[in-house]
Amino acid sequence: MKDTLLIKNASILPMTEAGWIETGYLLIEGNRIREVGSGSYHGKADTEIDAAGKVVMPGLVNTHGHAAMTLLRGYADDLPLMEWLETKCWPVEDRMTADDIYWGSQLAILEMIKTGTTCFTDMYFFMDRVAQAVEETGIRAVLGRGMIGFPPKGEQALRESEQFVRTWNGAANGRVTVTLAPHAPYTCPPDYVKQVAELSAELNVPIQTHLSETKGEVERCLAEHGCTPIRLMEQVGLFERPTLAAHCVHVTDEDIEIMARYDVKVAHNPDSNLKLGSGVAPVLKMLDKGLTVGLGTDGAASNNNLDMFEEMRQAAMIHKGVQYDPVAVSAYQALQMATVNGAKAVFLEDGHGTLQQGAPADLILIDYNRPYYYPRHNLMAHLVYAGQSGDVTDVIVDGRVLMRDRQMLTMDEQRIYHEVENVCKRLFA
Amino acid sequence: MKDTLLIKNASILPMTEAGWIETGYLLIEGNRIREVGSGSYHGKADTEIDAAGKVVMPGLVNTHGHAAMTLLRGYADDLPLMEWLETKCWPVEDRMTADDIYWGSQLAILEMIKTGTTCFTDMYFFMDRVAQAVEETGIRAVLGRGMIGFPPKGEQALRESEQFVRTWNGAANGRVTVTLAPHAPYTCPPDYVKQVAELSAELNVPIQTHLSETKGEVERCLAEHGCTPIRLMEQVGLFERPTLAAHCVHVTDEDIEIMARYDVKVAHNPDSNLKLGSGVAPVLKMLDKGLTVGLGTDGAASNNNLDMFEEMRQAAMIHKGVQYDPVAVSAYQALQMATVNGAKAVFLEDGHGTLQQGAPADLILIDYNRPYYYPRHNLMAHLVYAGQSGDVTDVIVDGRVLMRDRQMLTMDEQRIYHEVENVCKRLFA
Ligand SMILES: [Zn+2]
Ligand SMILES: [Zn+2]
Repeated sequence: MKDTLLIKNASILPMTEAGWIETGYLLIEGNRIREVGSGSYHGKADTEIDAAGKVVMPGLVNTHGHAAMTLLRGYADDLPLMEWLETKCWPVEDRMTADDIYWGSQLAILEMIKTGTTCFTDMYFFMDRVAQAVEETGIRAVLGRGMIGFPPKGEQALRESEQFVRTWNGAANGRVTVTLAPHAPYTCPPDYVKQVAELSAELNVPIQTHLSETKGEVERCLAEHGCTPIRLMEQVGLFERPTLAAHCVHVTDEDIEIMARYDVKVAHNPDSNLKLGSGVAPVLKMLDKGLTVGLGTDGAASNNNLDMFEEMRQAAMIHKGVQYDPVAVSAYQALQMATVNGAKAVFLEDGHGTLQQGAPADLILIDYNRPYYYPRHNLMAHLVYAGQSGDVTDVIVDGRVLMRDRQMLTMDEQRIYHEVENVCKRLFA
Repeated sequence: MKDTLLIKNASILPMTEAGWIETGYLLIEGNRIREVGSGSYHGKADTEIDAAGKVVMPGLVNTHGHAAMTLLRGYADDLPLMEWLETKCWPVEDRMTADDIYWGSQLAILEMIKTGTTCFTDMYFFMDRVAQAVEETGIRAVLGRGMIGFPPKGEQALRESEQFVRTWNGAANGRVTVTLAPHAPYTCPPDYVKQVAELSAELNVPIQTHLSETKGEVERCLAEHGCTPIRLMEQVGLFERPTLAAHCVHVTDEDIEIMARYDVKVAHNPDSNLKLGSGVAPVLKMLDKGLTVGLGTDGAASNNNLDMFEEMRQAAMIHKGVQYDPVAVSAYQALQMATVNGAKAVFLEDGHGTLQQGAPADLILIDYNRPYYYPRHNLMAHLVYAGQSGDVTDVIVDGRVLMRDRQMLTMDEQRIYHEVENVCKRLFA
């Protein structure tokens, strides 16, 4: 018999067709949800959490980021993009050690758990140490070793990626899954992308990449290859493999049709795209064409936090404003992007991102006793338009409680701050 | 001798040329700041607050809103604008009693204090009850009785506005100041606006109004009057009086020049303008021309909260994104809009929105011990891009502590929720 955990007296947002349960319970057995119902549960459970005055919803899924870039948070803001990359980010990244990545990822995971994220996506380097942090802390993650495809490092990236897949895919009771992660068409030449696609088929893992983030990148691709980055990726066969594409800000209608045809998933990063001056992705058109769109924060250097509540809110706001359309992207659609559709976008098994019988027990509790959640007209609108991540009180991943009443159970918060400050003393000396 | 309150061991962001004080103190005497310094204060004070690990900054100034619209929060989202107004907002507003306005304003003030706002701007009706709530709760406010200029109610609005000025301007130890508040050019005919301007001169109070919020409104003005709303307001002489204009989303370069010439202040409401599908105000151009721009939330029905941290963040994000300019509106500029420039925009005396000797003691403490405030690269960027209003721990207005360690000292939180729910049971029956 596995341990059972009962969450009672809760307002439940299951993100399924069942719809809102005003007062109900949720029973977890082991790492799965065994039962969700309204009213009271009449059996017994090993442990109980009284969620009176709280909302229970699926944990948030961050579909794009670079966790250890927390180390660069606030280091260089309000700068032109290339100056930011060339004089600020890259020189520091060159100096980063495996230990730095470990502590940067710990800080990111700490922040993500505290703000309601139960699964994150990562593409960076020294990924063994990121996976180690995921294993230790109890969060779920979809990881890829970022690949730059120029010789001679391109070959090494392929070998290391394969090694990373073999070592970590499915590790930590399945909490770690691995993708291949070619960085972008402008850093991975077409022949290289072909090799990546082949390796992905061989290893049976999906792919994550950056696509059409900036205007300049699309223009250069048109000049060099005579087609858009998305068309190019189609031609080299990348989309024959399950692919998650981050950003997709500057995409044409034809691009979107290609993506729809191959079921390419999208990681929409509204805040990062604003902050770097990249623009606003045509998400309404993507949703119209039936694309699966999740939300991502991108790295903390361009956001500057890993707060999925802010991404939800921005996703529900920005398209209304720039399209002059107050009906664009409803609160419920934003919630879907942040949960069930985000889970689909990062290739998690069915049931993820929902609260229903048999689904993995990844969920969060939110304190609903705040002025901005009154009056009680519409719980979903309140969560998206009025709520904030600081209202998350409890976080459960894979059936394990990682935060209880805002206390971290698997992480030493002060230690992490201390180690991060030490790392930065050296990195930015 | 007035009482003294010492805030020690604080990181201080004074929003003056003095710049950041890494560790320092701030001494309040009565309702004014007597001293701000680095290191330790060597005298004695009647009361002390240890702000170790906290940031002290000026309280945030919300330059535009309709407080009691909290009652409509989440009542009708994701709807077309006219449907929202005509079938949802207006019928409910017609039913609102003076008591409803009082409790809606109490809820708004509770939310604003808890999220770091020390002064708000309001234009609505039953304003005596709003002023009463301001007086009781200790917050600062700039109030105006909203005026619709059509007969026969237009006349009544003028008389009531005059009465409201005479009763409340300067009340509550100066915490209440009053403006005239003609709603907008499309609800106040030119002749009426002239009367308002004359009354404003007679009573020596400034004016707040809505200008050029939507495309449609500007188009109708062009069709009816042959000029933009801002040109029209110039022609009727409104700008001869000190004027605060909310929104200014659809303004021409010529409009901006007119505003600069008359020193018209702007309340920039980035979130409300997005959510209602109105667009993005050309704030970069306004700043270029030297306009004073503050930030506002607008009413909670179109936001859906009264969170100035979110407006700061949005003001620093949205213009970068839509202008493809990562350098647009720096973190510091967003902080200026939310504090010192906001104070200027709503006609508060000099010193408001800053921490310096002699300034009114309106300030907030922020818990800086959160993952998203690490590493300690840049405190101002962290506050704007990474912070959230839930990190505000203490709020002081006019020298009086209104919130201490997140406990409200002048308001009964649970009572307010209860009364608001009762009001809504009737209003939305
Ligand atoms: Zn990225
Ligand atoms: Zn307004």
